[in-house]
Amino acid sequence: MTKTSVSNIDVWKFEVKKTHTERVSDLLAIEEPLEIKLLYYNNLEMTEQSIAVTMRTPPHDFELVLGFLLTEGIIKNFSDVKKIRYCNANGKQDTKDNIVKVELQAEVNVELARLQRNFYTTSSCGICGKSSIENIQQTLCYELPPQVPIFHAKTILGLSQKIKNAQTNFKYTGGVHASALFDEKGELIMIREDVGRHNALDKVIGAMLAREELPLSDYLLWVSGRISFELVQKALMAGIACLVAVGAPSSLAVDMARASGMTLVGFTKEDRFNIYSGQERITF
Amino acid sequence: MTKTSVSNIDVWKFEVKKTHTERVSDLLAIEEPLEIKLLYYNNLEMTEQSIAVTMRTPPHDFELVLGFLLTEGIIKNFSDVKKIRYCNANGKQDTKDNIVKVELQAEVNVELARLQRNFYTTSSCGICGKSSIENIQQTLCYELPPQVPIFHAKTILGLSQKIKNAQTNFKYTGGVHASALFDEKGELIMIREDVGRHNALDKVIGAMLAREELPLSDYLLWVSGRISFELVQKALMAGIACLVAVGAPSSLAVDMARASGMTLVGFTKEDRFNIYSGQERITF
Repeated sequence: MTKTSVSNIDVWKFEVKKTHTERVSDLLAIEEPLEIKLLYYNNLEMTEQSIAVTMRTPPHDFELVLGFLLTEGIIKNFSDVKKIRYCNANGKQDTKDNIVKVELQAEVNVELARLQRNFYTTSSCGICGKSSIENIQQTLCYELPPQVPIFHAKTILGLSQKIKNAQTNFKYTGGVHASALFDEKGELIMIREDVGRHNALDKVIGAMLAREELPLSDYLLWVSGRISFELVQKALMAGIACLVAVGAPSSLAVDMARASGMTLVGFTKEDRFNIYSGQERITF
Repeated sequence: MTKTSVSNIDVWKFEVKKTHTERVSDLLAIEEPLEIKLLYYNNLEMTEQSIAVTMRTPPHDFELVLGFLLTEGIIKNFSDVKKIRYCNANGKQDTKDNIVKVELQAEVNVELARLQRNFYTTSSCGICGKSSIENIQQTLCYELPPQVPIFHAKTILGLSQKIKNAQTNFKYTGGVHASALFDEKGELIMIREDVGRHNALDKVIGAMLAREELPLSDYLLWVSGRISFELVQKALMAGIACLVAVGAPSSLAVDMARASGMTLVGFTKEDRFNIYSGQERITF
């Protein structure tokens, strides 16, 4: 259990088989705002801008911010970042952990219009699922490897148990999402938790970015919960070729995976799963 | 089943007990972008602005947009809205369902700075959970009624079964969230589904806003999944006094409920639940 990820409170538990409610101590997943500030050069002039506030579970804030910047298309490599640190509201360095300031290298060309106007509104043909997919595809840095079998079905079936052992905060709170990377042998490489599923994924991607291990095309990405378009998009930005989820994908998540040649697996139980796209990467 | 909420695709099902994968037909929840455009008067001048793009499950788009505008603090009453309709990228009326334009009455004072800069960054004391709560409290229109017992524990335990019968898209896809309103007798008043839990809640609130039934303080709000700060905030904007969830709340969701006198129930099973706040509204 990460101490700073959970919070202790008193709750009243009600059970039918008991005659009254019991006041007991319980653990909750912490949710706290994190502001992301960017310091970058705009026509040779140093510019500072607050670009997002996300509700997240501490710690791993720097990983979260790095992953967010990559999956939103602001940076492409870890070397684009000159400095990353906590600061206070006045921009001074601080030990409090609710504002992270990222200074980019002078040569990084920042296009914030995309963040402000939203990815999906920039298409000339208007707004629809097809244009959302096309917009994302224009921003991708990595091509996925060819669809040859690299993950065995048995490996996929065994992931749930491995996650159960590793997902410490969920065990205590029952209230956090997780993202994890596995290699082709099914070895756990990296796991991160958060109240927000997109944050958990950004943390994993940010951690691997800081190790300069992108693209992540040799790994399988496992996510708790359902698969939205946003999760597929973030995974593709990091070069993920195989995404496995516990829950169901949405229609647009499947469309995006199929259009990009990504392997997408959902409804993963201990004895079964559904393949929505890229079944050639799985062997039986 | 709502026809426009689900999509039919071919998937490959793998089961351990079978020797090969089967190609079968499956239903997915539809996820498609919806752009929200606002037409309002800014110093007597008509102004049009795209304020958000949300990934949502059709239909009930007008309800979603109305709920979004209310819970984001842009409108306070249904009468603030002069016209709501679908339009195309050029602003002309359209039968396609991916851009909704809302024209507000001339007297509505629109503060978009809040939307653009994000709720949580406006506090002078910086950014933290406490300031997030204070910011929200300044925007609330409704006071919650006193904490007197109105919902019986048996009513709460019976909700899951009622939801199961009513949540049609989940039955087919296993992939959508739901929000629902119940009265004190446990009668289902309103249920809406969406791939996004915040959208499902906005739809319920928007539907009740269009019926001019706000505040919703006589009703119990049930939500699938976990309770984030955002869900509590949206519920409070509509005057909800009792929020019941299947999953766990986050720390900040509980803090916000306690600071506002809201009843918050989580981990709701058929024989038990946890009360995190406002237990006086529940009788046993």
